[in-house]
Amino acid sequence: MAQSDNPIARPRYTGIPTFMRAPFAEDWSEVDIAMIGVPYDGGVTNRPGARHGPREVRNSSSLMRLINQATGVCPYDLARVADIGDCVIERPFQLEGAHGEIDRYYETVVEAGLVPLSVGGDHSISLPILRQIGKDGPVGMIHIDAHADTGDDYFGSRFHHGAPFRRAAEEGVLDPKRTIQIGIRGGINDRDQWSFSHESGMRVIYMHEIPAMGLDAVIAEALKVAGDGPTYLSFDIDACDPAYAPGTGTPEFGGFTAAEALQLLRGLSGVDFIGGDMVEVSPPFDPSGNTALLGATILFEQLCLLAEAFANRTV
Amino acid sequence: MAQSDNPIARPRYTGIPTFMRAPFAEDWSEVDIAMIGVPYDGGVTNRPGARHGPREVRNSSSLMRLINQATGVCPYDLARVADIGDCVIERPFQLEGAHGEIDRYYETVVEAGLVPLSVGGDHSISLPILRQIGKDGPVGMIHIDAHADTGDDYFGSRFHHGAPFRRAAEEGVLDPKRTIQIGIRGGINDRDQWSFSHESGMRVIYMHEIPAMGLDAVIAEALKVAGDGPTYLSFDIDACDPAYAPGTGTPEFGGFTAAEALQLLRGLSGVDFIGGDMVEVSPPFDPSGNTALLGATILFEQLCLLAEAFANRTV
Amino acid sequence: MAQSDNPIARPRYTGIPTFMRAPFAEDWSEVDIAMIGVPYDGGVTNRPGARHGPREVRNSSSLMRLINQATGVCPYDLARVADIGDCVIERPFQLEGAHGEIDRYYETVVEAGLVPLSVGGDHSISLPILRQIGKDGPVGMIHIDAHADTGDDYFGSRFHHGAPFRRAAEEGVLDPKRTIQIGIRGGINDRDQWSFSHESGMRVIYMHEIPAMGLDAVIAEALKVAGDGPTYLSFDIDACDPAYAPGTGTPEFGGFTAAEALQLLRGLSGVDFIGGDMVEVSPPFDPSGNTALLGATILFEQLCLLAEAFANRTV
Amino acid sequence: MAQSDNPIARPRYTGIPTFMRAPFAEDWSEVDIAMIGVPYDGGVTNRPGARHGPREVRNSSSLMRLINQATGVCPYDLARVADIGDCVIERPFQLEGAHGEIDRYYETVVEAGLVPLSVGGDHSISLPILRQIGKDGPVGMIHIDAHADTGDDYFGSRFHHGAPFRRAAEEGVLDPKRTIQIGIRGGINDRDQWSFSHESGMRVIYMHEIPAMGLDAVIAEALKVAGDGPTYLSFDIDACDPAYAPGTGTPEFGGFTAAEALQLLRGLSGVDFIGGDMVEVSPPFDPSGNTALLGATILFEQLCLLAEAFANRTV
Amino acid sequence: MAQSDNPIARPRYTGIPTFMRAPFAEDWSEVDIAMIGVPYDGGVTNRPGARHGPREVRNSSSLMRLINQATGVCPYDLARVADIGDCVIERPFQLEGAHGEIDRYYETVVEAGLVPLSVGGDHSISLPILRQIGKDGPVGMIHIDAHADTGDDYFGSRFHHGAPFRRAAEEGVLDPKRTIQIGIRGGINDRDQWSFSHESGMRVIYMHEIPAMGLDAVIAEALKVAGDGPTYLSFDIDACDPAYAPGTGTPEFGGFTAAEALQLLRGLSGVDFIGGDMVEVSPPFDPSGNTALLGATILFEQLCLLAEAFANRTV
Amino acid sequence: MAQSDNPIARPRYTGIPTFMRAPFAEDWSEVDIAMIGVPYDGGVTNRPGARHGPREVRNSSSLMRLINQATGVCPYDLARVADIGDCVIERPFQLEGAHGEIDRYYETVVEAGLVPLSVGGDHSISLPILRQIGKDGPVGMIHIDAHADTGDDYFGSRFHHGAPFRRAAEEGVLDPKRTIQIGIRGGINDRDQWSFSHESGMRVIYMHEIPAMGLDAVIAEALKVAGDGPTYLSFDIDACDPAYAPGTGTPEFGGFTAAEALQLLRGLSGVDFIGGDMVEVSPPFDPSGNTALLGATILFEQLCLLAEAFANRTV
Repeated sequence: MAQSDNPIARPRYTGIPTFMRAPFAEDWSEVDIAMIGVPYDGGVTNRPGARHGPREVRNSSSLMRLINQATGVCPYDLARVADIGDCVIERPFQLEGAHGEIDRYYETVVEAGLVPLSVGGDHSISLPILRQIGKDGPVGMIHIDAHADTGDDYFGSRFHHGAPFRRAAEEGVLDPKRTIQIGIRGGINDRDQWSFSHESGMRVIYMHEIPAMGLDAVIAEALKVAGDGPTYLSFDIDACDPAYAPGTGTPEFGGFTAAEALQLLRGLSGVDFIGGDMVEVSPPFDPSGNTALLGATILFEQLCLLAEAFANRTV
Repeated sequence: MAQSDNPIARPRYTGIPTFMRAPFAEDWSEVDIAMIGVPYDGGVTNRPGARHGPREVRNSSSLMRLINQATGVCPYDLARVADIGDCVIERPFQLEGAHGEIDRYYETVVEAGLVPLSVGGDHSISLPILRQIGKDGPVGMIHIDAHADTGDDYFGSRFHHGAPFRRAAEEGVLDPKRTIQIGIRGGINDRDQWSFSHESGMRVIYMHEIPAMGLDAVIAEALKVAGDGPTYLSFDIDACDPAYAPGTGTPEFGGFTAAEALQLLRGLSGVDFIGGDMVEVSPPFDPSGNTALLGATILFEQLCLLAEAFANRTV
Repeated sequence: MAQSDNPIARPRYTGIPTFMRAPFAEDWSEVDIAMIGVPYDGGVTNRPGARHGPREVRNSSSLMRLINQATGVCPYDLARVADIGDCVIERPFQLEGAHGEIDRYYETVVEAGLVPLSVGGDHSISLPILRQIGKDGPVGMIHIDAHADTGDDYFGSRFHHGAPFRRAAEEGVLDPKRTIQIGIRGGINDRDQWSFSHESGMRVIYMHEIPAMGLDAVIAEALKVAGDGPTYLSFDIDACDPAYAPGTGTPEFGGFTAAEALQLLRGLSGVDFIGGDMVEVSPPFDPSGNTALLGATILFEQLCLLAEAFANRTV
Repeated sequence: MAQSDNPIARPRYTGIPTFMRAPFAEDWSEVDIAMIGVPYDGGVTNRPGARHGPREVRNSSSLMRLINQATGVCPYDLARVADIGDCVIERPFQLEGAHGEIDRYYETVVEAGLVPLSVGGDHSISLPILRQIGKDGPVGMIHIDAHADTGDDYFGSRFHHGAPFRRAAEEGVLDPKRTIQIGIRGGINDRDQWSFSHESGMRVIYMHEIPAMGLDAVIAEALKVAGDGPTYLSFDIDACDPAYAPGTGTPEFGGFTAAEALQLLRGLSGVDFIGGDMVEVSPPFDPSGNTALLGATILFEQLCLLAEAFANRTV
Repeated sequence: MAQSDNPIARPRYTGIPTFMRAPFAEDWSEVDIAMIGVPYDGGVTNRPGARHGPREVRNSSSLMRLINQATGVCPYDLARVADIGDCVIERPFQLEGAHGEIDRYYETVVEAGLVPLSVGGDHSISLPILRQIGKDGPVGMIHIDAHADTGDDYFGSRFHHGAPFRRAAEEGVLDPKRTIQIGIRGGINDRDQWSFSHESGMRVIYMHEIPAMGLDAVIAEALKVAGDGPTYLSFDIDACDPAYAPGTGTPEFGGFTAAEALQLLRGLSGVDFIGGDMVEVSPPFDPSGNTALLGATILFEQLCLLAEAFANRTV
Repeated sequence: MAQSDNPIARPRYTGIPTFMRAPFAEDWSEVDIAMIGVPYDGGVTNRPGARHGPREVRNSSSLMRLINQATGVCPYDLARVADIGDCVIERPFQLEGAHGEIDRYYETVVEAGLVPLSVGGDHSISLPILRQIGKDGPVGMIHIDAHADTGDDYFGSRFHHGAPFRRAAEEGVLDPKRTIQIGIRGGINDRDQWSFSHESGMRVIYMHEIPAMGLDAVIAEALKVAGDGPTYLSFDIDACDPAYAPGTGTPEFGGFTAAEALQLLRGLSGVDFIGGDMVEVSPPFDPSGNTALLGATILFEQLCLLAEAFANRTV
């Protein structure tokens, strides 16, 4: 790139797209927060396509800018942010093997001291990521999603995109007492579908409870549950209504508007986030491109939160 | 289907699609609530395509599950539910003749004691359905729609998708005093366009009144108008905003969000519903498939309400 | 058109589309309010396509009707309304030259005493329009948009779709003290991006402030800022959320719903509007056609406001 | 339109779209060849939407230019060409009534001495048009289509888009001996489906015969069958393969490429065409817009043929 | 379905869609040729979505009719044809396990004496199907595809959609000497990519050879290679050009037109086909629906060939 | 990218997309053939969007592989190939200024000794590229396109996407005697539209001449015109029919199939190509993504030709 030096000052449709037009870093020593694509959708139970998510989110994220106008946060002032490329799954035909590849990749990420902000891929990828994030002790989690994803075996497998957080708690890398799940909705096939969430002590806020609670109360509850400890931030794009995010594997009507999702995330400032992910964008089901663009917008809010937390830890 | 016995336990993209993956029943003697497609759009005044609605709603409804997580209702525990196929209009080129075919089909449905839950097709189909539902006396109606559909002759015809409820009241099968119309909006060409609604005693809640009223007051009003008598539940998908339901014949911006529509329907528990329909999904105008999926989601809520009412009647 | 005389009484998919199916007028002497297309998008900084906006808005506007059901206003009873065709830019390759062509066209429009209601095209067209509207003295403005559009030079040009209102104020055709900007959001690349708005005295209401304020307070503030003087009404379709308006050049999630936008506009009755525009509909990014239809719906509300103001002035 | 005088010299995305950007003529006395929209699809047996055809073909036809580069013909030099608007069907709910409206409209067209070039709408419209074109004696026809459209009653009606040419021959307005049907293909439900064509003496060239015959032989055969007499030119867009024309009611794979269709039409120069139509473009099934654009391209070739024939008759 | 008895006589958009609107058969004793969906795409190496293929092909196949107009064959006169539903893979997360499920399903199909005509799903499904078809001795194959699918291990797996025919030959269920592969094209990563085809004795006709050969020579070669023995007919939709079939996992430009594909298949009459498949239709990449419709059209030609062969064997 | 070393061995949907997954090179000293994006569409006269072309072609080009199966050429064995990023136009609002930016960028490219293979952007970019390529003497050109692009001033500008080759010849950087233009078609507004081509001595082969000539004769003619001298290869995607390439600014039906385009390009082996471009892919008009994928496929053929020529020159 012989011309100007700041990609973010160039027209947005130009250049090879990295997340947020951040620098692509092969040398991780100059990176604090690493944006990572995980193009894997072998864990879906319904509509596939999230393997194409990282590319389209990268493409759409060129519309993001430097500063969060609503909060005043500029993540690039608070941390060294880079796109470090994809965690490429080279043996995608076998679910547990694929998870093993993710395990090993994130082991190096965590060992390098990077704060990972991952873009899926389906939600099953959160399990191997948490295994590394929580390897020194279980972490808390603020989980925004249409589904609690604490289901049990499905289609003959203990691992799939509907179960990562059950497995993470069972494996001791996620602290259910410091976990809150927000936006749960849609039909269920079993009255006990999310019993693990309830029995393990996770706080579950169903979508149908929110009109009466109000978003401020939801935020307050999330802050209380997460507390001061290290916390992971997992955002499944299907938390948002299909009018906003049609391109996803398991859409459920009655979800958050984009404005509500942004308001909710902005309310989480102050939590000690040590990693996050934004998952389940499935471009083949997204004819307008809106889902990828909303994913990029959510990702920018997550980046601001992670950068603030990083800065707080390094003061 | 030689393999497993419960279609709802299989991956959702598999099998020949029936509504909700319910059993297809040729023998009506084992059925309490019958889901029926009415693939007819000869009554539209603008964009056609609702004839393709039943197929796409069937397809999308595979994403529905057994239990309503927000209300706890499992319709399959309360009634025997089946897809009994389509009311096929075999002479679609003549509007009144087509309505006659629907008349005759629903006559057999009502005589068989089935509770019909119909999927349009355009809204003109509600008239022949109500002729049978209300044959022993006028029924009440909760009608959720962008248009009151109590217009007069249009394009030289007394019958079209903007007039079914005027005709139904005139024919004595609908009780206007026990009818409420919710969500009416959009421009009008005549200040008296819905005068029939007002003069006959229907309760009309315009969309622009709802922000000030609040949804709870709307629900309360609906419960009051419907009272204890037998009530029909008609949901035109254009009640929802085009952001949620672009695939419809006469879209009007400023409508319900999906979340509001679900909240409204869930508030109607306890009404003695004796039938219902969900109409005006037009797949050719629905590139993302969202409209058909929202239609399926609404249909599941309607199924829950009908099953509760059925169970209440049979206690 | 040998058949019936009122295009609005015919099926909506018929005929050569004019805005709102209003008469096409070559003779301006019988016109009070002129709807005008400005098919120019040479001022965009990101995604093009708004040059195709007027055609698709004309096409979609056939779904509009005569009377505003929410307010009771029939614009055609209050003023003589016509589509006078496009302001055709014949030398589109040079931005300032194109603006000069718009200048000269609107000079004749204003000299003819027409109230212009323009359909873009990109937002840079508002500058040459305001030059004519405000030629006898600066006008006030109610500006609904995701972006304040008071930026400075960009990509080497003083003129582009992010700067028209800075230039208009600098040129003395816009009164910043009587200007309010509503719905501003999205990221920024410079903390001072909208400093011109603040320093010149414009009232800026950011989108993230609105949930706490409420729409009624926003309306009250707009009425107060506009006061009794002549006021321009500029609506950028990207004020609405991309779920409602994906087809635009610079989409920003977290915007107005259609219902909110309609409620906001209806609250502005009584302002002395002397012109308006609806801009930035980009059909190539609008697979469902929703953006053009929403644009037409907004345009009808604007027409009602302009007709009321016209009637008030001519009493 | 105060600016330049020739719409065809302006950017193609500008202005209110007429067919080919030809003048819109309310005064028919200055017109030789009249392009007419017939927005009616009440005769379709499968997918509707052709009612929206005239608008989209008008829109796309702005890409057409003045001179046929392959043949050198400039139709505007040979005849006075205008868009005279739509034949609006005001009572669309009754097929035979709608046909009666078309009858009466074309009666005035033919009486005014105009050569009509019509844009459908579904193929059932050709019958009432031929009734007027052939009122003084049966005309010949070159008919390019996937279907012979000489079927019998269907769905209880003698009239529908699969039967117009049987009825036209029966009514004595079409001369089957001077009729050739080219491109017939697709499955059939009855071995005698097109027996009327064969028995009445029409020449039928099936699509599967053409690779062996070659297009030149097809053209020669068409010229021979049409001979010197007055001939109608009917082009159903489904003659072209769905890869070229997906947006149609009854697509059949294995059709003409666009290049073949153009070559075929260009070979028909010299026939005494006295009218023509291009039908069955259904925009709701045309996400890329290609079908409307191909329709406009075909229409331009038809216009050239009609203009040549007109000029030959008036020498 | 209380109304008329022949689904194929009803409007095509009606009813619950089975392949070709053939009867759905739970009782296999009355079936000769069984159409079967195999909704599995766990073997793809690039774009997923073929799991949704069977549903959309069923839906589109309603446009097919009873008789092949080009050949005169009516398959329903030659054999008892039914849709027997899907081979549902209930443990889709593990490739070899999924193949085992297909193995077991087709074992019952073959034991029941059915001629299977399968709809994928990705091409990896052909291996387990051939294991059953060829269990009593290797079969020949006419294979029409952009890829020879005789690759070796990929992404760590011996089994995937690029290798089924290597494995089938290695396992002794496919006779490479009686196998012809037609239409191979696209780039390769290894000069020896299809060396197995060449070394095992398969006849490979590359796409770029066909313009010079002509289709008749290709057909003659296929007939010669297949000879008189039992032969399988595998059609990968990506054999057709992406202009005709965009909705597939590995599109390669430069493929067959639909007309060429139909001509090629019709030339294969007389081969002793004992089964076939049509695979790799991926609806999420098919915005116009053309790929599913082309798949249904190909499937009908295959059904005709299988029915002819069945009738020949049973004379 | 810590994992495997060859991006081309990874799943195709992974990683940050460069053209062909070739290495991104900031250091030009190790590069022979440079693939370059030129995201500029300020020269279009109709539909914009080609500014988004380079990104989508990069994305789609991940489906390309190492070796050309039809010709056996592996470009990476013949030359060092890299993606060197975009020629970013930083002042896009002024056409001649933008061309000046391209001039200066390509000056450095040519001075560095790179063979440029550019991806547009609109066709106006070929002029500044040729200014550098031909700076030491006029080059020949094989130009494949629907339009000769040797027009004169348009919309008040000497420079636009319909005129680059007239200007290039006038400026002495293109040798018209060694220039051939292939595939010209569509309507014209002026009988002399391409007179510059004819009068300057360019060889023009119109599309409608090709069926009679045959492709082999076209290839022979191209080889004869180009001769032994240095030759530029310009491919406008609109040379292909809109069924193959709907996503372009000025589509013209009746174009090349993809198979024909590939055959034509493969026939050009042996020409001394010293640069090339592939232009006018406009993603907003490309709902299926086919146009970008075809563009990538064409680009790979061009890369093979340039690599062969490079290798021949360096032997």
